[in-house]
Amino acid sequence: MADFELLQALQIAAKTKIVQLVMDGLGGVPRNSDGKTELEAAHTPNLNALAARSQLGLAVPVRPGVTPGSGPAHLALFGYDPLQYDIGRGVLEALGIGFELQPEDVAARGNFCTVDEGGLITDRRAGRIPTELNQKLVALLRYVKLPGIQTFVETVKEYRFVLVLRPTEDQALYANVLDTDPQQLGVPPLPARAQDEASEPTAALVNEWIASARQILKDHPPANSLNLRGLAKDPGLPKFREVYGLKSAAIATYPMYRGVARLVGMDVLSLDGEALEDEVETLRTHWDQYDYFFFHVKKTDSAGEDGDFERKAGVIEHTDEVVIPAILDLGPDVLIITGDHSTPSALKSHSWHPVPTLLWSHYCRPDGVAEFGERACGRGSLGIFPATDELPLALGHALRLTKYGA
Amino acid sequence: MADFELLQALQIAAKTKIVQLVMDGLGGVPRNSDGKTELEAAHTPNLNALAARSQLGLAVPVRPGVTPGSGPAHLALFGYDPLQYDIGRGVLEALGIGFELQPEDVAARGNFCTVDEGGLITDRRAGRIPTELNQKLVALLRYVKLPGIQTFVETVKEYRFVLVLRPTEDQALYANVLDTDPQQLGVPPLPARAQDEASEPTAALVNEWIASARQILKDHPPANSLNLRGLAKDPGLPKFREVYGLKSAAIATYPMYRGVARLVGMDVLSLDGEALEDEVETLRTHWDQYDYFFFHVKKTDSAGEDGDFERKAGVIEHTDEVVIPAILDLGPDVLIITGDHSTPSALKSHSWHPVPTLLWSHYCRPDGVAEFGERACGRGSLGIFPATDELPLALGHALRLTKYGA
Repeated sequence: MADFELLQALQIAAKTKIVQLVMDGLGGVPRNSDGKTELEAAHTPNLNALAARSQLGLAVPVRPGVTPGSGPAHLALFGYDPLQYDIGRGVLEALGIGFELQPEDVAARGNFCTVDEGGLITDRRAGRIPTELNQKLVALLRYVKLPGIQTFVETVKEYRFVLVLRPTEDQALYANVLDTDPQQLGVPPLPARAQDEASEPTAALVNEWIASARQILKDHPPANSLNLRGLAKDPGLPKFREVYGLKSAAIATYPMYRGVARLVGMDVLSLDGEALEDEVETLRTHWDQYDYFFFHVKKTDSAGEDGDFERKAGVIEHTDEVVIPAILDLGPDVLIITGDHSTPSALKSHSWHPVPTLLWSHYCRPDGVAEFGERACGRGSLGIFPATDELPLALGHALRLTKYGA
Repeated sequence: MADFELLQALQIAAKTKIVQLVMDGLGGVPRNSDGKTELEAAHTPNLNALAARSQLGLAVPVRPGVTPGSGPAHLALFGYDPLQYDIGRGVLEALGIGFELQPEDVAARGNFCTVDEGGLITDRRAGRIPTELNQKLVALLRYVKLPGIQTFVETVKEYRFVLVLRPTEDQALYANVLDTDPQQLGVPPLPARAQDEASEPTAALVNEWIASARQILKDHPPANSLNLRGLAKDPGLPKFREVYGLKSAAIATYPMYRGVARLVGMDVLSLDGEALEDEVETLRTHWDQYDYFFFHVKKTDSAGEDGDFERKAGVIEHTDEVVIPAILDLGPDVLIITGDHSTPSALKSHSWHPVPTLLWSHYCRPDGVAEFGERACGRGSLGIFPATDELPLALGHALRLTKYGA
C-alpha cells in the first residue's frame, strides 16, 4: 500500500489544527568567528522556549547530499516525494511569476539566445539581456497566433520568459516533448520533438510558434532567436483534502510558493502586504476556517542567497518576535517549524544540508533542549528524517489518524 | 532483492541465542507533574544497568505518525513490513480468541445487529448485548450446517463473534469477499459479494450460512440479525526458520500474540500460569531447544489502555525485577528489549510514538547511558529506525549472517 493510500484509509474527522511554519532556506553552516550558524547566532527567546517543550530533528528534503530547488523542497514538506511527483520546469517557471495555470495548459520555459548567420547558436543566454529588453520582445511575441490555441508569453527576467499554450477548443494537449535547446554552442536549435504519439500535435504547434517567433526576433540581436525547455502540464497531484482530510490554506507572499500550494489543493489566502505582520494578520483572520496552515517566510532564503549572515539572522529574529507568539496565541494543536532546504550564507545558494526542524504538540515527547539550532536538532529525538514524514507525523500528533489493523 | 531473500541468502549456522523481550505498549508520553513517562518514572535498576552496556534507539512500528494495531505491530517486530504482509481482520479476530486456524480456513469477524420489520439496520452493534447472551446465540448458530464445510462459531465478546469455514473435502476456499456490513443505518445488510471468480463459492456458502443464521436470530431482538466482515485466510507468511534460519519459540499469555507468532512459524510454548514468573519458567525450561525467543509482557499495554500511569510503571518495575535478571542469567548472545507500539496512559490507547528499544550483545557499541527511557533512547546510537530492522540487527549481532559480496 502506498503511503498516501494508507493515510487516506486512516483519516478520521477531528477539529485539531496544524501549522507548518516554513522559514525558507532556514539551515546554515557555521561562520568562522564563533562557529555558529545564522539560526544559532540569532537571538530567539521564543523559539528556544518552545524548543524546550518540543522534539527536534533534521529534515532531509530530497535525498542525502542533494540540493533541492524550491518546488521539490516544498513538495517534500507537503508529504510528496519529489522524485515521484515531478513538477515540470515549465510549470514551476509559470508558478514562479504568479501565472494562474489551468489544468489543460502546457507551459514552457523560454530562453532568448543568439545565433549567427548560419543559424548556429553563439550565446545560449543572448548576453543576458536586461529585463526591460525582454519585456519589449515579449510584447512582440504576443502577436504570434496559433489555430485553436490561446497563447501567453510572459517575462521572467533577463533572457528568461514563459510560454503557455491553452486549448480553446475541445482538445487536449500533452507535454511529452523534448527541449529545443541543444545545450551547446556552434549547433542550431533542435526542433521540438514529441516523445509519444499523443504529444505530436503539441510539438507541431510549438514548432509553428517558434518559427513565427524567430521571424520576429531575427532583427533583434543579441536576442535574435530562442529556445524552449521543460514543456509540462499541471501534474495533477493528489490533493490535501483527499489524502490527508485537511482543509488547508497557504500564507505566502511569493508566487512560486503560492503556486506550489495551489497544486496540492490549498486555498491560497490573500494578504494586505508582504510583511510578516501581514501574514500573521491573515492567519488570525482565517484561523477558524482551516485545519492546516502553510505559513511561509521568504526572506531567510533571500538573505542567505545574498551571503548576508547578519540579515538572515535578523529575519529569524523578526520571525521569533512577530510570528511565533502570534501562532502560539491562536492555540494550534500541532506546530512544526522547519525550512524547505538550507541556504547557508557561506554558500550564497541553496544547499543539501538537512533542515533544523521542531515539532510541538500536546502529545510530543520534549527533548528538553531549550535551543532551536542545527546542533541541537542534530541531537534531537526526531533524528535525521525525510521531510516527507512531516505531514504524517503532524496528522498523528493531531489525532487525525485511526489505528492501522487490529 | 527483497530483504528476506537477502537474509535467507546470508544465513549461516550458529549456536547463538537471541531473546526479543516485548513489553506491549511500552512507550509513553510525559505526565505533567514531573515530565516523566511511565518507563522513565519506573524504578528499573536492572534495565538501567543493562542500558549502560547497550545501544538505545526508538523503533517506528509501521510508518511515522501511524498508530498500529497489535497484529501489524508484532509483524514489524518479527521483521515483516505490515503494509506488505497483511493479516486480514477475520484471521486476527480468530487468533485473538485462540482459535487454531488451519491454512485452508476462511475466518470472518461477525457482529450481531438489530434490524426493523423491513430488514433495515437500526443498530449495527445490537445494543452491545452482554457476552452471556452472545454465548447463547452462538450456541444456536452452531446448528447451521453447510454442505462439505465444517463451520465454527465462537464468541468474542458483547456483539462480536468469529465464524470459521473449514473445507472437509478436497476443495479450496478463497476469501476475496466484501463485508456484508453497509456501515450505516436505515439500509439492509449487503450480500457477501466475491471480488474474484475463485472466491464465488465462498461467497455463496457465506450467504447460505447467513440466511439460515438470520432465520434463527429473527426472534431474538435486539440481536435479530448479523453481519460478517474481514473475510480472510492465513496469509501464508514466510516462516522464521526459512527466512532467518532460526528455531523460534513464543512465550506469551494472550491468544492474539500466540496466534501471530504461530503465523510466522514459531513454536508457541505452553505456560503453567499467566504470571511473568510462569513465562520466565517456560523460558528456562526451553532454553536449550531454541535459537530465538519472543517473550511477551502484556500488562504494560492493558494498564496504558486503562489510563493507569502508576500501574503501567508497576508492570515495568515487575518486569525489571523478575524478567531481566532471569534472561541475563541464561546467557543470551543478543537481547533486544522493546515494545510493539506505544500506549501512553495519557491517551488511553495505542499511539504512533516510536518505541524505546535497547539492544545488547557481546559486540554492541554501548552508548554508555545508564537509563532506559524515551529520552535516553531518543539520543541513542540506534537512532530512530523501522521496527522491521530489529531481527536483521539481531542476526548480525548473533553472528548468524555471512558477508554480502566479496
